[in-house]
Formats: sequence, structure tokens, C-alpha cells
Amino acid sequence: MSAMTKIEIITRREKLEELMERLNDIGINGMTISDVLGYGVQMGHEHYIRNMSADLRAKVKLEIVVCTVPVQDVVDTAMRVLRTGEIGDGKIFVSPVSKVYKVRTGEEDREALL
Amino acid sequence: MSAMTKIEIITRREKLEELMERLNDIGINGMTISDVLGYGVQMGHEHYIRNMSADLRAKVKLEIVVCTVPVQDVVDTAMRVLRTGEIGDGKIFVSPVSKVYKVRTGEEDREALL
Amino acid sequence: MSAMTKIEIITRREKLEELMERLNDIGINGMTISDVLGYGVQMGHEHYIRNMSADLRAKVKLEIVVCTVPVQDVVDTAMRVLRTGEIGDGKIFVSPVSKVYKVRTGEEDREALL
Repeated sequence: MSAMTKIEIITRREKLEELMERLNDIGINGMTISDVLGYGVQMGHEHYIRNMSADLRAKVKLEIVVCTVPVQDVVDTAMRVLRTGEIGDGKIFVSPVSKVYKVRTGEEDREALL
Repeated sequence: MSAMTKIEIITRREKLEELMERLNDIGINGMTISDVLGYGVQMGHEHYIRNMSADLRAKVKLEIVVCTVPVQDVVDTAMRVLRTGEIGDGKIFVSPVSKVYKVRTGEEDREALL
Repeated sequence: MSAMTKIEIITRREKLEELMERLNDIGINGMTISDVLGYGVQMGHEHYIRNMSADLRAKVKLEIVVCTVPVQDVVDTAMRVLRTGEIGDGKIFVSPVSKVYKVRTGEEDREALL
């Protein structure tokens, strides 16, 4: 039994297509994408808040669940594609997944992710 | 103390209402639904990629957290409703949840989910 | 090494701005927001279902990952801001996170969340 892991990437919309292609290159063949709003205050920035929701930025959230492909490969690939050094490059969150099912075939876990 | 579990179902929009009704039948009385885009390459399909984002399909994501209702009942119900045998039937992801609060009453965990 | 935790809050849209401000006051400086639909049946309510999707309500989902800020502070703050005592106040879900990366700097975990 191998562990399964969810990787959530929140980043700029304009990077989505390149990111999807580079993830496909390392063996990721399924992903879920959604539109989100991101709010982030930078440490040390003095910030007079009038309306926090004015600081919300449109972002994409990309969700991937891996078993065979190493988590570190996904993280390294995302870092390489997404890092511009500018505020707004985004965040990556890694969390545990217990089970995966592919509805069409009933396959589970590793097989469900192939 | 009973364990709590999150079940995420990503599938076709046109199945949403039937799925909600069948889940309600087995005791699920709360769910969160969102619009997502799904990308999936089928193994063994030769695939000349020009524009991966053209292969994104509109899907729904249904999120359920259970405590009393068995996870397997939710999975079996979703499989039964969603399986057509065609590509695009979707995936089910199961992951751990540590705490749940119902804001209106302050109830926690099992009680928050009743 | 400190544990990291994801807190998901699903609630009314009209409470979003006040909630963001109060969370900012306790040291939360990053969050992700998305539009979702919530379905909830209240226990004991007799409910003649014709069309469950007619009972879907537009909600917001706010996702926060914490390390330094205590989970309980976030929960208490959200409870205080969101509780009206009326149906629809929402739910809070807490779940484990294994790793966080800040893409711009490569910082991990606690540092990635500062």
C-alpha cells in the first residue's frame, strides 16, 4: 500500500496552462481546477485597510492527488513554473488522502490514479 | 469519539440532483457544491496536445463530511448513481477531518453533523 | 516542528468582509475564498422534497491554513462573527495539513505562513 497525497496549488491564472503541461510531463494525468479569490498581506508592509475585499485577487486553485508520482516532483515542478519573485506567486498545500475511487471502473487508490 | 471523514465527489453536473437525493436517502443532510473544471487524460489514449485547457470539462464538486453515516455507504451510493461506464464518470476522494463546528448552535463533531 | 491545520469556514456572503477583518486582527494574513452552494436539511423539519437543488443557497467558503495562530482562536473568532442564531450560520471544518510552500521565496511551513 502506498500513501496518497493531495497537492493544492493556488496561483496566477495566466500560469495555469504552462503548469498543466509541465505536470503532465511528469506523469500527472488528472487535475481539478477552480476559480478562487486570494487575500494576502505581506509581512512588514504597512497597510491601511479600508476594504479588505478590495485586496482580493482572482486566482486559480489546482488540485492534484498523487500516489505513484512523488510529491516532491510536483512541488519542484510547480515552483519552477510559478516563481517569478513577485508578490502573488502563490502557495502550495500538501495534505493526506485516505482513499481514491475511479467511478467508471471502480478502481481504487493507485490504480484509480493511473 | 467517532472519526470524521470528508468525501469529495467530482462528477458530471447533470447527475447532481439525483446524487443529492440518493445521499439524502442514506442520511446525508448537508453538502457543499461548487463548479470546477476537470482535466483527465485516459491511459493508453494517444493524445496530441495543442492546448490542454481545451480539454477541461465543466464538472461539479460535492463535499460531504460524515461521522454517523458510514463512508462506504456514501461511496457505494455515489458509484451506483454516477457510473455510466463512459469516460467522465468522475472520482471520489476520501480524507480525514479533525473537528466540525455548527456555527448556529456551537455543536461539535457528531452533533454538528446531525 | 509545529503542526499545520486547515480551517474551512462555510457561511453567508454578507459576513465575509467582517470575518476577514476579525481574522486579520488575530494574525491571519492569508486566505482563499470561493463561491459555493450549500445544502442543509434541518433535523426535525418536515420537508417535502420536490427539487433539492432549489434548496441550494449561495455561500462563501473561506480557507485558512494556520501554524503559529492557534486553531481555537480562529474558531472562536469565526463563531463570534458568524453566529446569528438563524439557520444558515454555517459550518467550520478542521483538517490536517502536512506541508506548505510559499512559491515566491521557497519558504516552508511556519515561515511560509508568516
